[in-house]
Amino acid sequence: MSNQFELRLSGAGGQGLLLAGIVLAEAGILDGKFATQTQSYGPEARGGASKSEVIISDSEIDYPEVRTPNLTLALTQEAADKYISKDIINGIIVVDERVEIDPAIKYEKLIRVPIIKTAKNKIGKAIVANIVSLGIIVEATNIVSKEAMESAILNRVPKGTEKLNRMALESGYELAK
Amino acid sequence: MSNQFELRLSGAGGQGLLLAGIVLAEAGILDGKFATQTQSYGPEARGGASKSEVIISDSEIDYPEVRTPNLTLALTQEAADKYISKDIINGIIVVDERVEIDPAIKYEKLIRVPIIKTAKNKIGKAIVANIVSLGIIVEATNIVSKEAMESAILNRVPKGTEKLNRMALESGYELAK
Repeated sequence: MSNQFELRLSGAGGQGLLLAGIVLAEAGILDGKFATQTQSYGPEARGGASKSEVIISDSEIDYPEVRTPNLTLALTQEAADKYISKDIINGIIVVDERVEIDPAIKYEKLIRVPIIKTAKNKIGKAIVANIVSLGIIVEATNIVSKEAMESAILNRVPKGTEKLNRMALESGYELAK
Repeated sequence: MSNQFELRLSGAGGQGLLLAGIVLAEAGILDGKFATQTQSYGPEARGGASKSEVIISDSEIDYPEVRTPNLTLALTQEAADKYISKDIINGIIVVDERVEIDPAIKYEKLIRVPIIKTAKNKIGKAIVANIVSLGIIVEATNIVSKEAMESAILNRVPKGTEKLNRMALESGYELAK
């Protein structure tokens, strides 16, 4: 078993996936691991599909490029079509309930849950869908500890939004159970 | 001549180089180019040397890894020792005035200027050394337009700090002239 875990977080521009990638990498560091976080942008970045990639490893990471993600998150259909189908998936797929997965895609585990609806209706802010997603990822993989994830989030979110983000994270834990 | 430009931004943790990398990549996008931004963290990341890498290209970027930077920024001696010496440099080196460069290192151009002192004394906030650095990089390379850089900074800095950051950017332009 490899001690390197690769994640691809995808969705629409403006869904906070860059922040999610940074927080996840920083949580890995708080757990004493190595991490890389990569954001790739094309001219279509504004509004179109966006992805953020993270590698967390017990040892130094040679190449920051994610090739066969152990986990792929897709919050929108466009992101799923663009970023899931291109790889041979042997890992976990996490998608919003509204996303349809091509039946040809192979995976070990699919988690299809109401991420955006939970952010919007339960927390009251669609923008925290990224934090709900992090909760799902942590609960499903244990790739970082819950303590590290909570600290990493509190280090990066705007002052005054701590409680909201903590609720979003906990809703993510619940969705993955 | 390659149409791909690779940059490595290094310094100490807490100097805002992740933000500088994100802003630079986003400025590239505003100019209609492709970009990647990668942050690598080791367990020593807290307080130690930190680096953020950016690639800006006219066409899609195959590998987000910076191998032979066209420009390397180092704000601290530790970062210069760690991140300049490892590469064969054929490009531009930008360092703070207090940083000594190993005489064995080859470069096309060295810009050694008071980045941190300018941030601290002229702008009044050491934390804007990252934005002063961006001003130097833009003036020295034209890798992104000044209009795109200004918009990208204003998109990312906290509300209320726009004027401060604009001054920091302009001080960087002046230092590189």
